[in-house]
Amino acid sequence: MIYVTRKAHFNASHRLHNPDKSDDWNLKTFGKCNNPNWHGHNYVIEVTVAGTPDPDTGYVIDLGLLKRIIKKHIIDPCDHKNLNLEVPYLKGVIPSTENLCKVFFEQMKSDVDEVASSNSKLYSVRLYETERNFAEYCPKS
Amino acid sequence: MIYVTRKAHFNASHRLHNPDKSDDWNLKTFGKCNNPNWHGHNYVIEVTVAGTPDPDTGYVIDLGLLKRIIKKHIIDPCDHKNLNLEVPYLKGVIPSTENLCKVFFEQMKSDVDEVASSNSKLYSVRLYETERNFAEYCPKS
Amino acid sequence: MIYVTRKAHFNASHRLHNPDKSDDWNLKTFGKCNNPNWHGHNYVIEVTVAGTPDPDTGYVIDLGLLKRIIKKHIIDPCDHKNLNLEVPYLKGVIPSTENLCKVFFEQMKSDVDEVASSNSKLYSVRLYETERNFAEYCPKS
Amino acid sequence: MIYVTRKAHFNASHRLHNPDKSDDWNLKTFGKCNNPNWHGHNYVIEVTVAGTPDPDTGYVIDLGLLKRIIKKHIIDPCDHKNLNLEVPYLKGVIPSTENLCKVFFEQMKSDVDEVASSNSKLYSVRLYETERNFAEYCPKS
Amino acid sequence: MIYVTRKAHFNASHRLHNPDKSDDWNLKTFGKCNNPNWHGHNYVIEVTVAGTPDPDTGYVIDLGLLKRIIKKHIIDPCDHKNLNLEVPYLKGVIPSTENLCKVFFEQMKSDVDEVASSNSKLYSVRLYETERNFAEYCPKS
Amino acid sequence: MIYVTRKAHFNASHRLHNPDKSDDWNLKTFGKCNNPNWHGHNYVIEVTVAGTPDPDTGYVIDLGLLKRIIKKHIIDPCDHKNLNLEVPYLKGVIPSTENLCKVFFEQMKSDVDEVASSNSKLYSVRLYETERNFAEYCPKS
Repeated sequence: MIYVTRKAHFNASHRLHNPDKSDDWNLKTFGKCNNPNWHGHNYVIEVTVAGTPDPDTGYVIDLGLLKRIIKKHIIDPCDHKNLNLEVPYLKGVIPSTENLCKVFFEQMKSDVDEVASSNSKLYSVRLYETERNFAEYCPKS
Repeated sequence: MIYVTRKAHFNASHRLHNPDKSDDWNLKTFGKCNNPNWHGHNYVIEVTVAGTPDPDTGYVIDLGLLKRIIKKHIIDPCDHKNLNLEVPYLKGVIPSTENLCKVFFEQMKSDVDEVASSNSKLYSVRLYETERNFAEYCPKS
Repeated sequence: MIYVTRKAHFNASHRLHNPDKSDDWNLKTFGKCNNPNWHGHNYVIEVTVAGTPDPDTGYVIDLGLLKRIIKKHIIDPCDHKNLNLEVPYLKGVIPSTENLCKVFFEQMKSDVDEVASSNSKLYSVRLYETERNFAEYCPKS
Repeated sequence: MIYVTRKAHFNASHRLHNPDKSDDWNLKTFGKCNNPNWHGHNYVIEVTVAGTPDPDTGYVIDLGLLKRIIKKHIIDPCDHKNLNLEVPYLKGVIPSTENLCKVFFEQMKSDVDEVASSNSKLYSVRLYETERNFAEYCPKS
Repeated sequence: MIYVTRKAHFNASHRLHNPDKSDDWNLKTFGKCNNPNWHGHNYVIEVTVAGTPDPDTGYVIDLGLLKRIIKKHIIDPCDHKNLNLEVPYLKGVIPSTENLCKVFFEQMKSDVDEVASSNSKLYSVRLYETERNFAEYCPKS
Repeated sequence: MIYVTRKAHFNASHRLHNPDKSDDWNLKTFGKCNNPNWHGHNYVIEVTVAGTPDPDTGYVIDLGLLKRIIKKHIIDPCDHKNLNLEVPYLKGVIPSTENLCKVFFEQMKSDVDEVASSNSKLYSVRLYETERNFAEYCPKS
């Protein structure tokens, strides 16, 4: 098994807030991350595809194609945007790092699997909210 | 001359917007950085003090004291905040990286100079908006 | 499965030395790492919790709580300390990176599992001794 | 299970080119990576050994020995070299990151397993072509 | 004075070789950097503009414009290229890091000065050949 | 003026302690950095030479020679050592980052100036004690 990873980044604002709960619950649970005036991050995303290299190219996936898929599904909708208000596929999702990397994985899944080498698939999405906090969604592990 | 630097970081939302200009001018000038729903960054700040080490301590400045000054003037007011709306000393300042590092310098100047070794002074403030974009204010250079 | 990681760091002195062996054996086996006058490192620790996000919070674990657990069990006892002489739970442990990350895992296990979301658990501890040398303890893998 | 990793780096030139295919196919498939005048990278390699620490040393593997094995098999033959023309064991291999990390693993396997602690083995080789693109070969996973 | 910096990167092959000297002199002087089969690097460039922010924008220079100038003069001609053979403005230049950053500065000078805020100018170009070796050209210092 | 920099690293133990002062003064002044059982760091040193490239080589200084000078004066005496007890030229020096970078500069000065290109000289030494704390000695500035 070979794992190939492509890294990208975007800047966005967000807040952690569960609209089904009271303001008190939200403030107590999320603290400064609940700030109604938003805060933001330089997000770094790492997208990993696992499989066997194509014998003609030596590629598990053409990283140029993977870069375009990340741009289409992640960078274009999220960069310099408000993750709570402006990203259609995040509607109703609390934008914790955990939830974001799962939704990002699902957004890219079919496009990645279609262009990856035969028997290669999207394997995981890792998202750094800061250099010190990150999450990874890896459904096969 | 010896230069001593302390690094810190905070996360904030902002937008580039000049309220004295039309919305069209702002959109054309600042592009996606003008998004009315905000975007955000993991800011990294480097604060440099220049001078001669105190012979008793070997310190140009006690970095523990410098850390506290950065916390008081930068981290506490700005972390997880909206730089346009929530930081009193940024009122009326377009929060470009250039402007921020100048204002941050002025905020910390007297506190730093007071605790630095004799003939040591605040020298510069560098601010990274992203890993790829940064500004430095260095009035003596 | 989602993996959430929090990074922290501390500075410490240590030496590699097995007191059950001769000085010759120690010097031959550990070389410069056996220096009786100690050497030291800026250690970086990454603590990973694996599980399912809580539907109310989107959290596998509240990273503020995880930060406090790392502070209590790792940073407070080890930072600016001598790992061979001053950390009670390292008594009798040769402080190789391998051994340290296993002991750190065991120290934090019950506290982490108690505050993590239901069906989330401490998964691994990675410790960087330098940027070029690191070890990871991951008992489930 | 404990995983121990050693990082190293080398600089080399290469091009992606499949000599069994036409020039057109190569240009279309590999784009600018097919440049007949070569391009190059600062490669970073991470070599991971998995096992149980030796009770006398606390080592899964002596990292000094691992460093020497990486030097012998990777750095000495590849550093400041042309990967397509000058590395005997890469003859006939399209030097994609995927292929390189698999061949590097196979080159080092027997030497690493011989000096690792009992029941410890070479586990994976990760190769960064750039900070944004990397591949990992991990046959056991 | 405020300094604003934009970072970019490109990958290229090169060799150090002075065609006016003998092969023996070249090999003795440049060692492995003289390899006739080339080697390569992931170059990182930092371009710094110094001046006063425009009061309407808060910008010393619009970093979007600076990014385009770097792309036009550095990334497009050099990325995935052979610096000795394929970059017209490097003809006759020994591509040491020192020489490269000076030539890059001169290439960009007039375009940068034209779009920078009034009384702002191109100040320096720093070029990393590897993470451990870099040069900076700063004619005003 | 062109500035060329070479980076290196070493690991050492130390404590901040002024033997001319009381234990109370030392503890109050240096806090946890005064620990009599030592602590330690992964130090990173950046050595900068300034001048004009030699027209035959394109070099301000041959970085291979600079690497050897750093090894002789800094890495060999300091790596895996106790900076207070084991480095002859640090005898009587309080090993603050400020003091260390000044002494390191003076140690290397004549050797660097001897091998640098004509009219090139040692310019500065920057020393990182941690990623967040660093000092730079630059006598000409």
